[in-house]
Amino acid sequence: MEETLYARPGRLHYFVREVFKRLRIPPKDATKIADMMVAADLAGVESEGVARLPFHSERLSAGLVNPTPNIKVVHQSIAAATIDGDNGSGPVVATAAMELALNKANKHGVALIAVRHSNDFGMAGYYARKALEQHMIGIAMSNGTPMVVPLGGQEAMLGTNPLAVAIPAAENKSPFVLDMSTSVVSRSKMVAAQKRKETIPEGWALDSQGRPTTDPRQALEALRFLPLGSRLETAAHKGYGLGLAIDILCGVLSGGHFGQELSGAEGPRPGVARNGHVLAAIKISAYGPWVQFRNRIDVLLRTITARGRSKDSPSIYYPGEPEWETEQERRATGIPIPPDVCTRLVGITRHLDLNDAWEHLLEGKK
Amino acid sequence: MEETLYARPGRLHYFVREVFKRLRIPPKDATKIADMMVAADLAGVESEGVARLPFHSERLSAGLVNPTPNIKVVHQSIAAATIDGDNGSGPVVATAAMELALNKANKHGVALIAVRHSNDFGMAGYYARKALEQHMIGIAMSNGTPMVVPLGGQEAMLGTNPLAVAIPAAENKSPFVLDMSTSVVSRSKMVAAQKRKETIPEGWALDSQGRPTTDPRQALEALRFLPLGSRLETAAHKGYGLGLAIDILCGVLSGGHFGQELSGAEGPRPGVARNGHVLAAIKISAYGPWVQFRNRIDVLLRTITARGRSKDSPSIYYPGEPEWETEQERRATGIPIPPDVCTRLVGITRHLDLNDAWEHLLEGKK
Repeated sequence: MEETLYARPGRLHYFVREVFKRLRIPPKDATKIADMMVAADLAGVESEGVARLPFHSERLSAGLVNPTPNIKVVHQSIAAATIDGDNGSGPVVATAAMELALNKANKHGVALIAVRHSNDFGMAGYYARKALEQHMIGIAMSNGTPMVVPLGGQEAMLGTNPLAVAIPAAENKSPFVLDMSTSVVSRSKMVAAQKRKETIPEGWALDSQGRPTTDPRQALEALRFLPLGSRLETAAHKGYGLGLAIDILCGVLSGGHFGQELSGAEGPRPGVARNGHVLAAIKISAYGPWVQFRNRIDVLLRTITARGRSKDSPSIYYPGEPEWETEQERRATGIPIPPDVCTRLVGITRHLDLNDAWEHLLEGKK
Repeated sequence: MEETLYARPGRLHYFVREVFKRLRIPPKDATKIADMMVAADLAGVESEGVARLPFHSERLSAGLVNPTPNIKVVHQSIAAATIDGDNGSGPVVATAAMELALNKANKHGVALIAVRHSNDFGMAGYYARKALEQHMIGIAMSNGTPMVVPLGGQEAMLGTNPLAVAIPAAENKSPFVLDMSTSVVSRSKMVAAQKRKETIPEGWALDSQGRPTTDPRQALEALRFLPLGSRLETAAHKGYGLGLAIDILCGVLSGGHFGQELSGAEGPRPGVARNGHVLAAIKISAYGPWVQFRNRIDVLLRTITARGRSKDSPSIYYPGEPEWETEQERRATGIPIPPDVCTRLVGITRHLDLNDAWEHLLEGKK
């Protein structure tokens, strides 16, 4: 493939779903995985979209992820539960947990579900956003493969441990969606810099000797990223503390794996991953009238983005707005899939004998 | 006063309580305020300890804070509630809200309380720590006087909006206590630099023209601090997003004030403050056995702090450890109160005719 393919979202969804069905995932679960991946590609979070399909399909093919998990609630009270994901695909397990959080929060105002024995769930914001339609606030977190050093340390002890918070806003506007790793940047930004043969800014990563580096290749070899804040004098203890708090909630509270135990997914010896997650929901009408909330958040977000603009900056966004704009654009023009990703997808297609599904995707190109 | 006073915690508590009683706060509420302030001074968070007494007492004297509030639950469901603080003192209102969160979480696993019409509650970690004794995880947040600029902006729109998470750890060790403002640093660090006639690092603040500054005096005049991350290339959209999320939860969800509405406490025209808070609790035994949690978090925190130490750094701490060490030390040697703070406290003492209480403090000095 020499050109970027602009795929229609519906056809891309069909293709992804066919791949996971062929990998022995039941159709309704394959739908859930495709939902997450297409949402990521629509939002411009390509690192969790189809570019990540090879990673997921290899792990399924190698028997490292359970295609038919028995997802179980192992502890439960009115507003809390622990779920054991039985090593199922991350989006399948996390979707089940978010549904339980929404059900409980809808009845009781708030709920928080801890999840163990899952896998990489992709884009955290996808699960948080599930709360919006029901006029709730959604929260999603996960731990993951160690690639972040504690402040003052040299060895990777924590994942990039994302935190997402989605909050409904005024109609016909972007919701508030904060979806952040607790490192300065996630790995995908370093991969992008390497592809473009650019340096990375100081404050992103250490090399394999534990020294600061601006070379993305060295950063990706070492996998020793810095926590949000970068340095002690600019408060890296805060990013480190947030990442550690997320590991405690997702790994320790859930009864699952934590810290360096999580090197199975992307470490030198591929193994079972055992990621943990937290999914939580807050029902807005439990705190006051929904319409009042909607009007008030609209005032806050409009004021923030309208005022005090700096001369160097084209505009002030609130979290979620840039991704929302990207989604509107991609729904019209298609989801761009760069040539190198297309080549890898064609490889999967051949390997799994899914040429028809690939042809169906190509026919729909914009 | 020319010397630092080393005060015994119990005597300092007595003194602070007497001040608030004289300002018409009922004795049991004066105790709550003194509890928070002495806890802050013990932890080394002087900016929320007795150094802040003049601020609180002036606002009470001026009638800007209600000494006898009628704190009311205005919305309630099983795991959620909204509390109206009736413009009461922050520690009094937030303590009531945290007690409700702990009661509800103890019964139902999780609870989250939104609070409106309160005042500056001081050290966020103090409320989060209230959960520890009951083997729960505590969370505390607050909005506040606008002094943080959004990413790409020049005008202060958000408070330093703190987030605290307290998690019990092994016995006889420090609990995990993350207590962070969502700006790079809080104002107290700039005040300290100014006192020591030092510059501040780049990435902390803008001057009154919206340009980066390393002069603490300019930073304090302008009150335009940068969000955690400092710059776009080191992910300041994350600190900005966290601060905004906290304002939405504390200000919008609670039905209280948010954004620039909060300039009453420390803006050019002193007025009613109307801070909002969130207090939440998570019961560990709702997710699995408590003893298992305690053993597992001990493994994680020991591993993190023992491994991968860098040559430049004496040791790796986890959040809460430095403050815990300071507390052990200050319980032995007393709480240091620098001469300039003593002078201001003597002023309050004279004004309120509380010479006996001050003498009682001096007699107990170490």
